[in-house]
Amino acid sequence: MARVVVDVMLKPEILDPQGQAVQRALPRLGFDGISDVRQGKRFELEVDGPVDDAALARIHELAETFLANTVIENFTVKVEELAVGAEK
Amino acid sequence: MARVVVDVMLKPEILDPQGQAVQRALPRLGFDGISDVRQGKRFELEVDGPVDDAALARIHELAETFLANTVIENFTVKVEELAVGAEK
Repeated sequence: MARVVVDVMLKPEILDPQGQAVQRALPRLGFDGISDVRQGKRFELEVDGPVDDAALARIHELAETFLANTVIENFTVKVEELAVGAEK
Repeated sequence: MARVVVDVMLKPEILDPQGQAVQRALPRLGFDGISDVRQGKRFELEVDGPVDDAALARIHELAETFLANTVIENFTVKVEELAVGAEK
């Protein structure tokens, strides 16, 4: 069993009101020196069986068709091997 | 300028209806072999100046007090150095 992480972020040219709201609130809350904030989604998928090229290709297709709206969002797929009993 | 990524995920013992909805939809959509899905948030912060221990400590505090609800959520802080012109 392995964990695959899919990160979905708005494309750089797309306005991100959530991220802007966070960024504008930071100086008010005493945190300076952060020039931009973008907010996106993180999906952690627990995959049965080995994560080989075929499985990754399917997860890539899944992310492209279902998790991300590729008109306005970019996504990345990363494998995080899950050691048994090493859950955070 | 560097990019710092804060990932915020619901704690493992907290029910995640969004992730469950995704997981239950997958077989219907033709994707089998995924036993669990958790959905969380990813924040990309563009930090002015060097990301030293003091800056990281401040971002850790920011994440703890403002980005994550630590009663129900875990968060991780990661530094992603941003090469100029290497934007995806």
